[in-house]
Amino acid sequence: MITSRSNEQIKLVRSLVNAKARRESGLHFIEGDKLVLDALASGAQVVSVFGTDESFAQTGASYTQVSQSVMQALCQTQTPQRLCATVRTPSTACPSSYPNGLIVVLDGLQDVGNVGTIIRTADALGAAAVLLGSGSVDPFSPKCVRAAMGSGYHIPIYVGDVAGELAKLNEQGFLCICGHLKGEQSLPNINERTALIVGNEGNGVSDAAAALCYKYCLRQRGRAESLNAAVFAAIMMDRLINR
Amino acid sequence: MITSRSNEQIKLVRSLVNAKARRESGLHFIEGDKLVLDALASGAQVVSVFGTDESFAQTGASYTQVSQSVMQALCQTQTPQRLCATVRTPSTACPSSYPNGLIVVLDGLQDVGNVGTIIRTADALGAAAVLLGSGSVDPFSPKCVRAAMGSGYHIPIYVGDVAGELAKLNEQGFLCICGHLKGEQSLPNINERTALIVGNEGNGVSDAAAALCYKYCLRQRGRAESLNAAVFAAIMMDRLINR
Repeated sequence: MITSRSNEQIKLVRSLVNAKARRESGLHFIEGDKLVLDALASGAQVVSVFGTDESFAQTGASYTQVSQSVMQALCQTQTPQRLCATVRTPSTACPSSYPNGLIVVLDGLQDVGNVGTIIRTADALGAAAVLLGSGSVDPFSPKCVRAAMGSGYHIPIYVGDVAGELAKLNEQGFLCICGHLKGEQSLPNINERTALIVGNEGNGVSDAAAALCYKYCLRQRGRAESLNAAVFAAIMMDRLINR
Repeated sequence: MITSRSNEQIKLVRSLVNAKARRESGLHFIEGDKLVLDALASGAQVVSVFGTDESFAQTGASYTQVSQSVMQALCQTQTPQRLCATVRTPSTACPSSYPNGLIVVLDGLQDVGNVGTIIRTADALGAAAVLLGSGSVDPFSPKCVRAAMGSGYHIPIYVGDVAGELAKLNEQGFLCICGHLKGEQSLPNINERTALIVGNEGNGVSDAAAALCYKYCLRQRGRAESLNAAVFAAIMMDRLINR
């Protein structure tokens, strides 16, 4: 059982709060019993599980018992649960050929909670994948993984240049749709190859991306100026998948 | 100009982070130029505006210049903007007769970000009002008001006993609909008097509330177990208002 916060293995795990350490190691950190168990059940490459219990029934990853104080040091939440783990980050390379279905493209999103929530929603509603622009937040940061609740292990997460990938999606027969204040009031006929582009929280979709898209204005009735990005994404996914 | 953090007026404003102080004074605190200007434009009862500029062109509320350090002490965000204010909290008493339209009922929601986001979405999509169960978070806490982005001044916010108010809504001809894992797969015909009940993040809608509702199961295709409460609310509001 590890009882010292300055143990080398513990220091390595704690370093994963930094994007650079995540990039260099190819690992990320998850915490919470449900998230760890779900990662194992989803076939994610769980490398090491740490827990405050003596043993851990699940197989497939090395298990190390740690003291309550070490658990506290490992976790970002104020009241850690019994389990946390390191997981090999899935490849986020964009595919040469995109799968059928709805691809949700995030163009410059900066709020990790929004990105995690959109990944969770995309999974729940049945989108095919989520593509993050290179300038967006890291989808495997601890807070983003918590908000996604493990959905990043259920559907592919790609990271790439938005304009370049949108051009590729267009070539491959995808109808790319973005929200735009000056857009059309109605949705076009959609088929099984559709991409939804969600813009930055403050500035919306970049001009470069918008130029490659059908612009749609989600009509608002009230006095609120705009919708939260994760809410906009959810309503659009529901409309594009379920109508 | 106030330059001391221990000024009595500043101490009073700072106390509004506490629910008890908000209740006793009937005031709440808002920060951010956009939120303050929007509150003034919305006809909210802005009592005092504080800012780092020498003067402030808007009328209708007393203006006090404060130093940067006092501004920092007043605000909860790490990089305060130029304006913050105290606002008289609108009455949240439930009406004897509910207005036509969609009433969004929050049953035990505990995440202030979710509650604020739902109020913002309800405003944007054109819901008639938001009703919070007595056990929910305070819709006029600083974080909730920030997430709602001023929408709490655009539509009525009621606070009351969920089961009692649902009985009243039923009596007044409202069709009350809640999300439920064991609910129907299709929505009933809806008219202009509909209530949407959104349950607690972890436990869903309470049994007492569910017993008074049409139970609807929002079908999920992917492997995510559930939707974020604010996302569920947004999709349901869009379906109930726009279909």
